[in-house]
Amino acid sequence: MTIYLHDIPLPEARKRFESSLTSAGLWGLLEAEEIPLDQNAIVRVLAEPVWAKTSSPHYHSAAMDGFAVRSGDTIGALPTQPVLLKYGGYDEINKTVYVDTGDPLPEWADAEIPIENVEPLDDLGHPAADPRHPASIQIRAAVTPWSHVRVIGEDIIATQLVLPAGHMLRPVDLGAIAACGHDSVRVVRKPRVAIIPTGSELVPIGSQARRGEIIEYNSLVMASQVRLWGGKATRMPITPDVFEDIKKRVEEASLEHDLVLLNAGSSAGSEDFSARVIETLGEVLVHGIAVRPGHPVILGMIDLHRGDTPRRIPIIGVPGYPVSAALTGELFVEPLITKWLGKTQSEPGHITATLTRKVTSPPGDDDYMRVVVGRVGEKILAAPLSRGAGVITSLVRADGIAVLPRGSQGLPAGEKIKVNLFRSFTELEKVIFAIGSHDMTLDIMAQFLAQCDRRMVSANVGSLGGLVAVSRNEAHLAGSHLLDPNSGEYNLSYVEQYLPGRKVKIVNLVGRQQGLLVQKDNPKRIESLEDLTRPDVKYVNRQRGAGTRVLLDYRLDKLGIAADEINGYQHEEFSHLSVAAAISSKRADCGLGIAAAAEALGLSFIALYEERYDLIIPAEFFTDSLLSPLLELLAASEFQQAVLSLPGYDVTHMGSLIAELG
Amino acid sequence: MTIYLHDIPLPEARKRFESSLTSAGLWGLLEAEEIPLDQNAIVRVLAEPVWAKTSSPHYHSAAMDGFAVRSGDTIGALPTQPVLLKYGGYDEINKTVYVDTGDPLPEWADAEIPIENVEPLDDLGHPAADPRHPASIQIRAAVTPWSHVRVIGEDIIATQLVLPAGHMLRPVDLGAIAACGHDSVRVVRKPRVAIIPTGSELVPIGSQARRGEIIEYNSLVMASQVRLWGGKATRMPITPDVFEDIKKRVEEASLEHDLVLLNAGSSAGSEDFSARVIETLGEVLVHGIAVRPGHPVILGMIDLHRGDTPRRIPIIGVPGYPVSAALTGELFVEPLITKWLGKTQSEPGHITATLTRKVTSPPGDDDYMRVVVGRVGEKILAAPLSRGAGVITSLVRADGIAVLPRGSQGLPAGEKIKVNLFRSFTELEKVIFAIGSHDMTLDIMAQFLAQCDRRMVSANVGSLGGLVAVSRNEAHLAGSHLLDPNSGEYNLSYVEQYLPGRKVKIVNLVGRQQGLLVQKDNPKRIESLEDLTRPDVKYVNRQRGAGTRVLLDYRLDKLGIAADEINGYQHEEFSHLSVAAAISSKRADCGLGIAAAAEALGLSFIALYEERYDLIIPAEFFTDSLLSPLLELLAASEFQQAVLSLPGYDVTHMGSLIAELG
Repeated sequence: MTIYLHDIPLPEARKRFESSLTSAGLWGLLEAEEIPLDQNAIVRVLAEPVWAKTSSPHYHSAAMDGFAVRSGDTIGALPTQPVLLKYGGYDEINKTVYVDTGDPLPEWADAEIPIENVEPLDDLGHPAADPRHPASIQIRAAVTPWSHVRVIGEDIIATQLVLPAGHMLRPVDLGAIAACGHDSVRVVRKPRVAIIPTGSELVPIGSQARRGEIIEYNSLVMASQVRLWGGKATRMPITPDVFEDIKKRVEEASLEHDLVLLNAGSSAGSEDFSARVIETLGEVLVHGIAVRPGHPVILGMIDLHRGDTPRRIPIIGVPGYPVSAALTGELFVEPLITKWLGKTQSEPGHITATLTRKVTSPPGDDDYMRVVVGRVGEKILAAPLSRGAGVITSLVRADGIAVLPRGSQGLPAGEKIKVNLFRSFTELEKVIFAIGSHDMTLDIMAQFLAQCDRRMVSANVGSLGGLVAVSRNEAHLAGSHLLDPNSGEYNLSYVEQYLPGRKVKIVNLVGRQQGLLVQKDNPKRIESLEDLTRPDVKYVNRQRGAGTRVLLDYRLDKLGIAADEINGYQHEEFSHLSVAAAISSKRADCGLGIAAAAEALGLSFIALYEERYDLIIPAEFFTDSLLSPLLELLAASEFQQAVLSLPGYDVTHMGSLIAELG
Repeated sequence: MTIYLHDIPLPEARKRFESSLTSAGLWGLLEAEEIPLDQNAIVRVLAEPVWAKTSSPHYHSAAMDGFAVRSGDTIGALPTQPVLLKYGGYDEINKTVYVDTGDPLPEWADAEIPIENVEPLDDLGHPAADPRHPASIQIRAAVTPWSHVRVIGEDIIATQLVLPAGHMLRPVDLGAIAACGHDSVRVVRKPRVAIIPTGSELVPIGSQARRGEIIEYNSLVMASQVRLWGGKATRMPITPDVFEDIKKRVEEASLEHDLVLLNAGSSAGSEDFSARVIETLGEVLVHGIAVRPGHPVILGMIDLHRGDTPRRIPIIGVPGYPVSAALTGELFVEPLITKWLGKTQSEPGHITATLTRKVTSPPGDDDYMRVVVGRVGEKILAAPLSRGAGVITSLVRADGIAVLPRGSQGLPAGEKIKVNLFRSFTELEKVIFAIGSHDMTLDIMAQFLAQCDRRMVSANVGSLGGLVAVSRNEAHLAGSHLLDPNSGEYNLSYVEQYLPGRKVKIVNLVGRQQGLLVQKDNPKRIESLEDLTRPDVKYVNRQRGAGTRVLLDYRLDKLGIAADEINGYQHEEFSHLSVAAAISSKRADCGLGIAAAAEALGLSFIALYEERYDLIIPAEFFTDSLLSPLLELLAASEFQQAVLSLPGYDVTHMGSLIAELG
């Protein structure tokens, strides 16, 4: 254990890396290469300015379909006093010929008259049968020199600057470059980046991963990032955790690439060889950066001694967790590729948003927090996603990223934060925030809404949590199935209590069965809530405020069972699927939940109760165009069919208005 | 001439096209195709939702490097009362083993303790030499079940919706899809678009175009647009203006593509066959749309009778002028490709800006006007670019587009307009507006500034025009070389007159020679301004307010020559290069201007006068970081060298502060 992690602040780490790259002559543009204009030149970056080789147009050309004339011949033409010009012929004056758009103007002409402004005549002075081949034309207005002529250089004059170096080529640019006489273009060559996945536990995508095996997808994510940013990526084969193998692979990759990304093995674990390999082949500049996630990043240089002159190649030891790996790409790989290509790094749009819940943060690190962003009424909201470095779905769901800087221990709910956006403002206006109870039909709804230009973001905080979110104007709707123990009715009394005076519509989504999820074929023969008190039965509960928890407590009360009689009552999960997953992975024997969750994970289900699951929608959103596709879905038979394909649902009252309050 | 152009409003044209596409079953998603995840899946659009096949993690795994334990064994551990766990072994209780991050948790364990929180001991109870293989570990705090364990499904639970259909894949999405057990993905296949350039005057890019020949680059621009929008483009060979040849080519292209773009031949000229070809092979839906530029667009359908079932393929007759062609792509091709791919069309950002000059507009058309956008002080400005449909550089220079709707005859300067932006807000903040006199060193300056993250936009409105722009707060600086006939001094008296009381710095850019530009080797032996009165000499002038025009008028006055003695005095051009181009193309014999313009177009130059060319910079911009790279350039020897490579320049006083006024 001779290698230690140092918490170097991000700016300092960047400075060390840049200064090493500068010393090695690598902190600047890559060389130019010449490519034909038609060979995918778009999105490439000009290595040199483009100066016009020829003018455009390169001859005086007809701007419209019409007749070429000498302007001097038209002097004196008036509506009452036409001038006659003879078609073709060899006369020195009063001559005209027809020209199509783009045709060269005859040497003797200095103007054009559009065909709609002349009277083409035949030999007898009658309107000509073919207006384009008359015997003569009559005009009733004089024209000024060069009118309706595109003169040489109207668009581009030879030697002019057409595009500066460093410009990223767009389709129209290729046209301009071709127009001024070029058929190829000198662009910055693409940076070549090698990605080396290491780890004896890794198996390639498409493998049937066994226990202890992990599907290796970081190299795919990073290769795709590199391509998106304009580089060429090589995914090397998986290398096992063997020092000599990794060393050999790094040496091999360094010879053919501009940058090596060595994935995983960057922390200080027993099989983490990255730092030692880099130390052996070159220099470790930084090991451990004060950012989270992404902490154990290594920045280094590999020394190459082959060939005439020794060279150095930068290498980055990338942490193994997918969120850390993606962030390392954004923090270190994108700026380097951008620098090499001479692009200006696209600065993301940003927005100030209100934090929906409290977040804590390690004070020693810059903390990169992914959030979902949307607008509810006048409020722009940022809902923090899972902070786990292993939770790749947090990257998938994120609309943006907020940085909690070093020194901060976190922020309370309601605080304003700056969010760097991954999506456009327009897209954020299409986000529907559904906060509340979890139901699997919400997944199906999200899928249908995606096809109606809406994105539904659900947060599973339980039914009561949803009502609280609505009361704070932080949700467009809340899913709720709260049983009132006194009335036996659902939701109404809770809405009256939590949203007093608020104008709200309660709309039914589904009726559904609640029951006990148990191991497949119910080996412990659990049949009712009474069985939960058995010493051999381990229960998994839902969190406080969840409708299912309310139901459980109500039923236990009726049965006279105390919470502390139940082994596992304290073990709380936040969704039906999480309860099912806990049972499926044998962390528990049973839990109260819905049939669809049992089926999803191959568990057995003991039906116990029927309940109503409603959507609580503030009146102002009920009539908002944002929600109209959602309300239309509730009447759509395809959606109802899709819900019915899950077990335990009843769509009889789907879309019915249960109540209007306030 | 049986085909007429109809001015159909854009929404009506779109409606006709969409309804024909709908009838043909073509107004919706294209079919799906399955591609491997690692085969450039980024930026492709999901044809079907992705549901998780497996959970991730798919086994309980160690979240850190540490020791797997049974949480029950740790109960009672306190700082003062450590608990000892035996390493490995077969004991039923108090057992531990070391696990690396990602390792599966042993079946008997239900928690992990990170290595930094344990005391590894050897057989004698001393600290273990290898902390990862101790004889036992001592712990001083109890752990709760499942702490530091990534439980099955922590990230993704099998059967969950991972991504909805219609989603455009990003690098992190590929990771999530791989993580939940997929190795391929079903995406919408790329639309295949054929582009057929027609015209007997066309020659391919790279040809030495002769008089009357036009380099064919529209197909390159449109193919690049199609690729950028997500389609596959085929550029067909150039087809001459022969009806049967074009018909054959269209038939051939229709068989293999989803959309055919038939370029040029869409107006009503003598060789414009597009409408007839489309009529012969199918149906013309719209011919002529009330938009400018782009007017003669044709929308139609080709009927295919080969194979089992007849099919229809949409075809668009695209106008030949490059600006019209690019706009047709944006108005009709992008929405169609977007529809076929199931993407939501990216709505451009927009901004309200102040028009810098009056524009006129045909009242019958929606007029698409390209503008340069930038911020000067507090004002966001939109400077209209050339409106010519043939001016492709207007596309290259544009920052955005504004629509003057049908019914409008134009707008006065100072009016607020909505601009749809091609660039981000951040990029617009880097624009330097240099309005005023034209000098070729400005092109070089633009090239240097592009490498300092600035974009200099010059408008050549003459020296006086530049001062007026500064007085209106519509320029960051003005280039000026205005000679005061009374004092013989440059610029000062004009600045005092046009910018009274304004705090302004006058900084020298260059000294330069003014003289007569004449045909190569001066065949007419023009030697001085006196020669301009010769009947065989045709002059080309600069516009009023240009410093060169002031100089001419001053010198003519001194020589006692009247303006009307000069043939061509009324012929005004707006820049030195335009004057040179007029002479080079024999529209004139000579003009007053700078040596560099003569050299650029291979003309001869008769030096007459030395003059000073200054930059007039308001004090508030002089100290603004926007301009600092420009001011630094004036002291940079590379920039001075680049200027000296042009003839007729003196950089002795470059960067000198000539005066501070106000």
